[in-house]
Amino acid sequence: MRMRNKKWARPYLKECNFVISNPQEYKGKWSDKKIHVEIGSGKGDYIVNMALMYPDIMWIGIEKNENVAAIMAKHLVEANVNNVLLIIQDATDLILWFDKNEIDVIHLNFSDPWPKKRNTKRRLSNIRFLEKYSNCLNENGKIIMKTDNASLFEYSILEFCNNNWILEDISVDFRKNEHNEDAISEYESKFMKKGNPIYRCIVGVKK
Amino acid sequence: MRMRNKKWARPYLKECNFVISNPQEYKGKWSDKKIHVEIGSGKGDYIVNMALMYPDIMWIGIEKNENVAAIMAKHLVEANVNNVLLIIQDATDLILWFDKNEIDVIHLNFSDPWPKKRNTKRRLSNIRFLEKYSNCLNENGKIIMKTDNASLFEYSILEFCNNNWILEDISVDFRKNEHNEDAISEYESKFMKKGNPIYRCIVGVKK
Repeated sequence: MRMRNKKWARPYLKECNFVISNPQEYKGKWSDKKIHVEIGSGKGDYIVNMALMYPDIMWIGIEKNENVAAIMAKHLVEANVNNVLLIIQDATDLILWFDKNEIDVIHLNFSDPWPKKRNTKRRLSNIRFLEKYSNCLNENGKIIMKTDNASLFEYSILEFCNNNWILEDISVDFRKNEHNEDAISEYESKFMKKGNPIYRCIVGVKK
Repeated sequence: MRMRNKKWARPYLKECNFVISNPQEYKGKWSDKKIHVEIGSGKGDYIVNMALMYPDIMWIGIEKNENVAAIMAKHLVEANVNNVLLIIQDATDLILWFDKNEIDVIHLNFSDPWPKKRNTKRRLSNIRFLEKYSNCLNENGKIIMKTDNASLFEYSILEFCNNNWILEDISVDFRKNEHNEDAISEYESKFMKKGNPIYRCIVGVKK
């Protein structure tokens, strides 16, 4: 997500006690609750609503863009939730922050499709990332992925299946039926209004 | 496909030398060419056009409905192709007709989705059929499936992946790009005109 530089972003984030600037020090001791990690949380629409719906889960949002993350932080303050932590860094370092088997679910929502072939490695469902997820997820661990981008979805399904992940669910039009259990972000809502299908899959790790 | 009974169908099919009434006698000796089998060929739109496009392949159409098959037979006579054979019987008997490793590709085009749960077993991508396909396909054998039905597609992908088939390709909007290598049937064309996506996957057998 591109966004103009916000001068207030960095100082604001510094003041937020739910922003974790030293995530490697939390390794192995994030929470006694179930841990759900969202990679690329953007403005936080999804994670804020899910945290409100599921207070017994510890939600950890990862977002590398400070300007976007600052908006998410504001939402979190306004919503007054206490079961969300944020890491404002690049998710490539995931295994430095989480212990083996520490995460229950990884959420990938409307991730950057990186359409050009030379950028394949940057896609969050690329094998390079899958190996890291596999390390950090526990033995019942899952990835839940949602996207409006057909090409990213096709790529991801193949990448999961060809790298030994277990396809547990697939939907090529997830919002065709009501899913009150899953929050709809503003971004997602835009695509739904255009009549575009939302693709979703759940894959389980094989340990 | 429902269709009024056609009195001329049975006698007409009897006269067609490409209609094989005793397929079990062909077991192991269908052809020296590559063998592509389409299950549920309907009026034959797909198989006739593919046979014209790929004359070096022996195409075998299976269609249990005589009235529909008779229309396909007429198309075949008109198109004057000599690389199509028809079996007018129920595909549950597939392994009686084909030897182990005899088939190169099985095509499932716009198969009946059998939406009710109690009819799951009738879906052509149900495990009951997959085991038969696996038996008859050679070690590089594939299933190529196309459908406009989201639920059938989702069901099939899960059924393939959970039964050890290798997902080689998946498309959630196959006709978004041109695919001149693949014939478009009248039935498919109707869905495309409505703007509905065509789903397609290719799965390889694991031997």
